[in-house]
Amino acid sequence: MDIKLKEYETIDELECNDLKIIQNQNTFKFGIDAVLLADFSKEIRKNTTVVDLGTGTGVIPILLSAKTQAKKLIGVEIQEKACDMARRSVNLNNLQDKIEILQYDLKELTNILPKNEIDAIVTNPPYQKVNTGLIGDQEEINIARHEIKCTIEDICSVSGKLLKNNGELYMVHRPERLADIIYNMKINNLEPKKLRFIHPNSKDKANLMLIKAVKNAQPFLHILRPLIVYENGKYTDEILKIYNKK
Amino acid sequence: MDIKLKEYETIDELECNDLKIIQNQNTFKFGIDAVLLADFSKEIRKNTTVVDLGTGTGVIPILLSAKTQAKKLIGVEIQEKACDMARRSVNLNNLQDKIEILQYDLKELTNILPKNEIDAIVTNPPYQKVNTGLIGDQEEINIARHEIKCTIEDICSVSGKLLKNNGELYMVHRPERLADIIYNMKINNLEPKKLRFIHPNSKDKANLMLIKAVKNAQPFLHILRPLIVYENGKYTDEILKIYNKK
Repeated sequence: MDIKLKEYETIDELECNDLKIIQNQNTFKFGIDAVLLADFSKEIRKNTTVVDLGTGTGVIPILLSAKTQAKKLIGVEIQEKACDMARRSVNLNNLQDKIEILQYDLKELTNILPKNEIDAIVTNPPYQKVNTGLIGDQEEINIARHEIKCTIEDICSVSGKLLKNNGELYMVHRPERLADIIYNMKINNLEPKKLRFIHPNSKDKANLMLIKAVKNAQPFLHILRPLIVYENGKYTDEILKIYNKK
Repeated sequence: MDIKLKEYETIDELECNDLKIIQNQNTFKFGIDAVLLADFSKEIRKNTTVVDLGTGTGVIPILLSAKTQAKKLIGVEIQEKACDMARRSVNLNNLQDKIEILQYDLKELTNILPKNEIDAIVTNPPYQKVNTGLIGDQEEINIARHEIKCTIEDICSVSGKLLKNNGELYMVHRPERLADIIYNMKINNLEPKKLRFIHPNSKDKANLMLIKAVKNAQPFLHILRPLIVYENGKYTDEILKIYNKK
């Protein structure tokens, strides 16, 4: 398939089943967060319908097309340019039958998707509260990083509505937001069930976390072993495995 | 001072400033949880009034009398036998001026303590929900371990009422209860600020956690480095330091 690239765009390898992704070197580039989230959510069952809230360039549904046997992966993204890149990446990988990219405000998603029917939701949302952290002059980046268009409240509220009973929400986020995340999950009938902290190395505080909630489940949270990224300046074996390099 | 011991009671060293504690070998014996909680809450400021909810034999206020410069430590305990032991331990250590033991139901504590005035609360509450875990035939142990007389909801509710603005709640609990704890803190204006998981060793899941909340604080949770208890079958240096053995 002939895929047209725009200025500043590159086609990068995902190092997973020969999958590729179109990225913009100045704005949208996936990070370790997306790779860890895709790995964390690879337990999603087969023949399921999965929604990615804030899909950006579509990296998560593209990775999940290889890591799971989900039937349908729907990436929702409010920004037009990111949607356009995501759609071209879907075509580039011949995943049109499996992945759909919707340009839509996730807060309004119950207008176009059925309530109480989605099997799983994955999300790598903006991490920073509005008025915290550095705001740059590129609106596209600001929207991806700051809670300008969607907050933790929005993510948990729409997830609580879309997910079926026992449906699963997988999220990557910053540890300092954990209390707000748990609170908003709980008030939306999403019970936190698994939590894993990511530490840059074994001496440092966690700087990322993965959390799974299940709709209407019994309260019992499993705190998994910490995931350490670097040891003596090199990726740990576990990270190398997640990147399919071991 | 002449302290009378009952059958099954022993006087044990706390290995901290020559402090001692009366324990019952069959029922009330402190564990590593109490030692870790006392260490975690040693940052309590001087000249403060501190309440220990569910003080049992009084081990936490006795340890805090050495680890902090708090002015007044109030241990609240519903069980008569535990209160009696705690009071005798207070006398044994000549801490009558500093530590008061109240036999009272903590759910009713606002009847006898002022609202919005307490500087800090510490608590090592029963960990298990009613109808989970093994229930033994000794009521005293059941009350100490299961949420028969007080639940996470009760602890957070009374803490929210007693603590002054910016007052601190320090709790040790089981990681699987984290979501309920955070939710109940949040609805009682207690903002989780610090969280530390305790792992038996570096390969195992966390089996304990320490959490600090501050009344009416801004949301931002620090996830501290995990605390590892054993390495190669021996206490780690950090644990030895906490036990004053290094």
